Amino acid sequence: MSNTEQQTAHRPTGVSVLAGVDVTGKGDTFAATAPGGGPLEPTYRSITPAQLDEAVAAAVQARRAPIDLAAFGAALDAAADALEEAADAVVATADAETALGETRLRGEHARTVAQLRMMAEEARTGSRRDVVDDPAGDGPAAPALHRTSVPLGVVGVFAASNFPLAFGVAGTDTAAALAAGCPVVAKAHPAQPATAELCGRLVAAGVAAAGLPPGTFSVVHESGYEVGQALVQHDGIDAIAFTGSLRAGRTLFDLAADRPRPIPVYAEMGSLNPLFVSRRAAAERTDALVEGIIDSYLLGEGQFCTKPGLIVLPDGPDGQAVLDGVVAALAERAPAHPLLHAGITSGFTAGVADASALPGVTAVHAPAVDGAGCQAALLQATPEAVLEEEALRREIFGPVTLAVRASDEQARDIADALEPALTASLHFTDDETGWARSLADLLARKVGRIIANGYPTGVRVSPAQHHGGPYPATTSPLHTSVGLAAVDRFRRPVAFQSFPDRALPSWA
Amino acid sequence: MSNTEQQTAHRPTGVSVLAGVDVTGKGDTFAATAPGGGPLEPTYRSITPAQLDEAVAAAVQARRAPIDLAAFGAALDAAADALEEAADAVVATADAETALGETRLRGEHARTVAQLRMMAEEARTGSRRDVVDDPAGDGPAAPALHRTSVPLGVVGVFAASNFPLAFGVAGTDTAAALAAGCPVVAKAHPAQPATAELCGRLVAAGVAAAGLPPGTFSVVHESGYEVGQALVQHDGIDAIAFTGSLRAGRTLFDLAADRPRPIPVYAEMGSLNPLFVSRRAAAERTDALVEGIIDSYLLGEGQFCTKPGLIVLPDGPDGQAVLDGVVAALAERAPAHPLLHAGITSGFTAGVADASALPGVTAVHAPAVDGAGCQAALLQATPEAVLEEEALRREIFGPVTLAVRASDEQARDIADALEPALTASLHFTDDETGWARSLADLLARKVGRIIANGYPTGVRVSPAQHHGGPYPATTSPLHTSVGLAAVDRFRRPVAFQSFPDRALPSWA
Repeated sequence: MSNTEQQTAHRPTGVSVLAGVDVTGKGDTFAATAPGGGPLEPTYRSITPAQLDEAVAAAVQARRAPIDLAAFGAALDAAADALEEAADAVVATADAETALGETRLRGEHARTVAQLRMMAEEARTGSRRDVVDDPAGDGPAAPALHRTSVPLGVVGVFAASNFPLAFGVAGTDTAAALAAGCPVVAKAHPAQPATAELCGRLVAAGVAAAGLPPGTFSVVHESGYEVGQALVQHDGIDAIAFTGSLRAGRTLFDLAADRPRPIPVYAEMGSLNPLFVSRRAAAERTDALVEGIIDSYLLGEGQFCTKPGLIVLPDGPDGQAVLDGVVAALAERAPAHPLLHAGITSGFTAGVADASALPGVTAVHAPAVDGAGCQAALLQATPEAVLEEEALRREIFGPVTLAVRASDEQARDIADALEPALTASLHFTDDETGWARSLADLLARKVGRIIANGYPTGVRVSPAQHHGGPYPATTSPLHTSVGLAAVDRFRRPVAFQSFPDRALPSWA
Repeated sequence: MSNTEQQTAHRPTGVSVLAGVDVTGKGDTFAATAPGGGPLEPTYRSITPAQLDEAVAAAVQARRAPIDLAAFGAALDAAADALEEAADAVVATADAETALGETRLRGEHARTVAQLRMMAEEARTGSRRDVVDDPAGDGPAAPALHRTSVPLGVVGVFAASNFPLAFGVAGTDTAAALAAGCPVVAKAHPAQPATAELCGRLVAAGVAAAGLPPGTFSVVHESGYEVGQALVQHDGIDAIAFTGSLRAGRTLFDLAADRPRPIPVYAEMGSLNPLFVSRRAAAERTDALVEGIIDSYLLGEGQFCTKPGLIVLPDGPDGQAVLDGVVAALAERAPAHPLLHAGITSGFTAGVADASALPGVTAVHAPAVDGAGCQAALLQATPEAVLEEEALRREIFGPVTLAVRASDEQARDIADALEPALTASLHFTDDETGWARSLADLLARKVGRIIANGYPTGVRVSPAQHHGGPYPATTSPLHTSVGLAAVDRFRRPVAFQSFPDRALPSWA
């Protein structure tokens, strides 16, 4: 299809998709706002709790259907094919809602297609299913056991705003849940309803083409919080997946824990992602570090959960040279760029202002905010300030990082004081593996991924990936939301004891 | 050692073991009560919250030490050897505190030793560690990743009262946590302090012999709840393992979820464990079923989380014959036997009385309670009553089960209405695999283990075992507290990106 044909075939119409049917919400009317601009077409209407009940009831019914993992694989492949074909329309729609730019969104689109295909393959092969067989031993105390896995149940997915595609309603959480055989009720992010509608329709069509019950997938819209809360509290929901802020993630976690029947909440909430630079790396790779640090913390205007929010440089002239280089490069950067939505803009400006006001902190490059968006900020703090002020060890979402120049001992004390995070990065030379190994040993006990001589932004979608970490990085330290292992969140073990093969369910 | 020598070498003295040191609590004084008898020697004193702080601080310090998984393996093996050698003393002490009898306790002792050895092997080999390597692909978007696991942190273990050894302070949770490389602070059950002291000292000695930091293991005593709650709320604790009642497990879960930094709670809380008998099985194996049902629900006086609490028999004469056989066998049973402690006795008698009072329920064999303990009870209910009364689908801990005679359709409706459980059991003939397969497919979606032509009591400790299930069976549906996979609860993935081998920590 040409771009124009795509725009026609994939035109958002302002509907939720409830169990395969396009449905107009019966709640309030809202429209997304173009970042730095005005309201976008079409308008949407929030669904009501009663409409949510219908979607969940259909999902529960789908859950009771025969478990056909091959059909889930077919649905995911069909969704991937359709998303690939709709690339132009989807990218254009997402760009209108996010202003993230075509280059970034083309990359994210390709990743989203690849994620769906990877999970389609997983649905078919079950490569990560924990299948173990114990043959019968002597006597009744050692019966034969066949350990396998079963879909966990109906999954409520909350789409993130900072990755409209890869963490959207057809993103990693939906793909992983479907790969496990779980029906999904996905809540669109209200800042990106049209992107969600387009992606959601493609998944729903894949589900239909694969012959799965229509309740297997729904996408619901809401401008506020009532339906989202009802989703977490709904007795038909068995797990929640969420990507977003600590505050929102914790709210959902608390709601789920307070249920009569608590359910797992897989909330990935971003983090500080400290980056440490050794003495010799600072000396030998000054320019590359300047470029790498700038590129990483300003990628997507700093709106990544993996943005490096703390840069620990060596004290002495080499660390200072890296810092000076970052400041000089910032001065030449393009002017303000709009952030994803007003809530992020206000959180960013408040966070930068609050941190700047703390003792020991200097705003080396202060951001100006105008109608067009936010400029990048760079803060510098003393090691003592970082150690004393808990607020300096917390993420500020958006285009800002905090630089600190520290002795090796201070750097270690800072590493020790940090909260758990999704990632930590270490830059070092071949002569400094002792330094790196010692810090890696310390940091590995509190982060999900450790990077050598690289940057935390850019998360490979692969079997060995782990995008997680203890709270406050996530609410479920044993799990990842990115990579093949993301499917593990939605499978539950079950053991069959002394079962003749003929009596085993087909999926077991 | 002779039995007498053992009694001397392994004499309980009334102390907690805080980081390897015998310490007398500074709180209230209490003594265990012999089931059906008077207070036992020695007396114990609860530790204070300040003493708990010391134990946790030592555990946190141990957590910061170099991770030496081989040493954890050595500690577990040493504990297993010592526990094996102390068999006579440990069994005698446990029998005095539980009245479970030597035969049962010898078996449980052997299982506990075997669990420690299995987990020692796991510590050394890491057979269940999820190690995955992605080689570097083309370009910076595909860096090499090495996924491995790291100990989750300090684990608080609550010992159960119904398995003084296998789920005690040296039981499955402690063994699994140590196998993962996690320090443990274990809270003894106040009904079995001497058993806990003996077992705990053996583990502490193993930890010392292996050269691990003494904070790696502590056992604390408390008669009440304050220290237990403080353990769950302590910022130095990273996960909780618990086996016991739904009420207590939920309380701990809620406390952990309310923490500023929530932590996983692996609570295994028992369940109804329905058992379904097909028409032909009832007809062809009447006597074996009578014996099997009686033995399973009265094993350990019904004080097993896997006790079959609902027996669904076919309507018609064959189901009636099984029921009649159970009633007749009960009449010939030995008289009252003491339950584990007063709380269980009162919960049992109240539960039986409440259920008996519901419409459609008959107390076919009513229990008498006297000073010596409780007699076994058998209730019968109509299928309609089971479907209507939620209380009839809940566990009553102790020597009681509920029989119901139902048509195939009613049996399926009951299976459908049941809450999640640890287990379900199906008895069927080779000609009835369709019946079994259909029920298995339904029940596998809500239980952790399904048993063909067997009984749920008796849980094989092996690689394929899964002793878990969705809430209310447990608070963590993806995990098991028994078997090799129990170690999974205490490891957390971590990915090393582009790491040169020389910079990897030794344990990675």
